[in-house]
Amino acid sequence: MNKLLGVLGGMGPLATVDFLHKLIEETPASRDQEHVPVIAYSVPQMPDRPPAIVGNGESPLPHMLAGIHTLKNAGAQAIAIACNTAHYWFDDLSREGGLPILHMADAACDALGGATRVGLLATEGTVAAGFYQARLAARGIECVLSSGDDQRDLVLPAIEHIKRNELVEAHALALCAVRRLLDNGAQSVVMGCTEIPLAIEYATSDVSAHCIDATRALARACVGWWRAP
Amino acid sequence: MNKLLGVLGGMGPLATVDFLHKLIEETPASRDQEHVPVIAYSVPQMPDRPPAIVGNGESPLPHMLAGIHTLKNAGAQAIAIACNTAHYWFDDLSREGGLPILHMADAACDALGGATRVGLLATEGTVAAGFYQARLAARGIECVLSSGDDQRDLVLPAIEHIKRNELVEAHALALCAVRRLLDNGAQSVVMGCTEIPLAIEYATSDVSAHCIDATRALARACVGWWRAP
Repeated sequence: MNKLLGVLGGMGPLATVDFLHKLIEETPASRDQEHVPVIAYSVPQMPDRPPAIVGNGESPLPHMLAGIHTLKNAGAQAIAIACNTAHYWFDDLSREGGLPILHMADAACDALGGATRVGLLATEGTVAAGFYQARLAARGIECVLSSGDDQRDLVLPAIEHIKRNELVEAHALALCAVRRLLDNGAQSVVMGCTEIPLAIEYATSDVSAHCIDATRALARACVGWWRAP
Repeated sequence: MNKLLGVLGGMGPLATVDFLHKLIEETPASRDQEHVPVIAYSVPQMPDRPPAIVGNGESPLPHMLAGIHTLKNAGAQAIAIACNTAHYWFDDLSREGGLPILHMADAACDALGGATRVGLLATEGTVAAGFYQARLAARGIECVLSSGDDQRDLVLPAIEHIKRNELVEAHALALCAVRRLLDNGAQSVVMGCTEIPLAIEYATSDVSAHCIDATRALARACVGWWRAP
């Protein structure tokens, strides 16, 4: 298993660390040498993703491509992107990056079990990109989205608190956002932004059991890639 | 501040994640772009460090050098090594790697304050290497080491538990090892193995206040390197 996983991170830095941690947790190993070899590029000096999708913000694509090229030159054979919103550029990154990319939304959908109505907690960029909705629809699953008010008052501030390492505030807001989706009929909620699991998992709660962690799902997919012959 | 920090990790993988997490915690930042840009090479498929120092185990030096060369080619301008024991090869890695390396023991000693008797919790490889003892002596500080029995029955098993992600067991053993050093007159204890802070910090305890975290000290030194003009 002489493979090397490249991780395109920095969006944000804490989410990258969370992904790397979950990659370890999802690996059956009793010593160092049994863990997935990784090279992680976490250079957060790039434009924010959502404004480039929903507004007229500068595109982060050249920065992300530079990251993938760096990882490829360093020997990576496949890429995991530790940011849901960045998957808006998945096709460009796959084509111009020259390496297979494990798609986080595919991994998350594989973890859904038998739910027929699934909530999505994500940035406005990921919601606008539509790659979660398309995958859920293809599986015959109805997607429940946060209202515009909830997106503005709960989801977005929760993510911003995480980026400032303010976990208490982020936890309360994210919890509330999940509850609203469950109240609207979602049986499960995909935490489709890598900052959201950090907020939800800050403390134990009754909503955790309903949450699907896209970050952990991607980590599991990466372990599968590494262990496959 | 167009610098890139290279992290030589994988020794072990969880300690690398802990270092990256502490790097974020030690960075004053309110958004992604204010965090230290990092590329981390965490390839744990290399020989264990202690047997190469105290026994006749295969040397990990070629693997570590390959990691530093990969990081240098990827644009890193300085290296942090997220493993105390690996600093046994510091001179070789500095000379043949071609990049400045921030020394973890220098960073830890800078965090000691006014202690005159300091305990060292470390692998047998780090203890045999002597770089902590030399630095403490140069500052006129007496070094208190674990007894051979405590090294075998407490320190080593604590580290092995961490590498298997068995935090409860590791915590109890590491706590006991710190208490023994304090009982022997140490005023502070340097956690001079990157697995030890993971064990100690798993739960709150009265010994934490006496512990100096070499991993966090190195993270702080790296933030200083990045922010320096």
